[in-house]
Amino acid sequence: MDPDSVAKAFVDHYYATFDTVRVNLLGYYQDASMLTFEGEKIQGAQNIYAKLTSLPFQQCKHHTTTVDCQPSGTAGGMLVFVSGNLQLPGEDHPLKFSQMFHLIPTSTGSFYVFNDIFRLNYA
Amino acid sequence: MDPDSVAKAFVDHYYATFDTVRVNLLGYYQDASMLTFEGEKIQGAQNIYAKLTSLPFQQCKHHTTTVDCQPSGTAGGMLVFVSGNLQLPGEDHPLKFSQMFHLIPTSTGSFYVFNDIFRLNYA
Repeated sequence: MDPDSVAKAFVDHYYATFDTVRVNLLGYYQDASMLTFEGEKIQGAQNIYAKLTSLPFQQCKHHTTTVDCQPSGTAGGMLVFVSGNLQLPGEDHPLKFSQMFHLIPTSTGSFYVFNDIFRLNYA
Repeated sequence: MDPDSVAKAFVDHYYATFDTVRVNLLGYYQDASMLTFEGEKIQGAQNIYAKLTSLPFQQCKHHTTTVDCQPSGTAGGMLVFVSGNLQLPGEDHPLKFSQMFHLIPTSTGSFYVFNDIFRLNYA
């Protein structure tokens, strides 16, 4: 697969996990991973997992609008930049968001998330 | 300076250059640099410079809303994630944008842009 297809497949899988079995997001992160969520800095898979599973909504649905990717310079690493909409329960209108992931290859041929920065884009 | 202050200073300087002396943006990039501008992939300082100086507007004004940063894992590298508004001449309303930079230190104690991904966030 070309890098753009790999990035799109990763993002689709990540958000499907987020929207359906959020506890499985733990597997995307490692101890060195970093998340900046709406300006809040969180480090390490367990802390990131705790943050993502304690957000004040149980159900949501991510729709991606654009997915861009570039090689990051770290061996086999990839930067993925997403824009999209996030539909929350009980809300008439979805929220716009942007997110970036720095993906690092694992020894099993997959990727883990080393850097993750998420922002809502308020109108 | 702490990394957040460095990131903010970089971004302020970059957009001030973009908005006032756009030809000076050439100095921010090197031959290995990559830009993805609204999905279009451009590689190398000269090509990036040609793209940025040929955009269909001469004057603009970037206003940053949020600037997040994390270490990228590459020695001394930094990922910077920006959201903001872009005011174009003759437009009543600014356009919302998101942009990410992967900054790599130079031997002179500054940074160059290795990765640059820009997207307008349409309503």
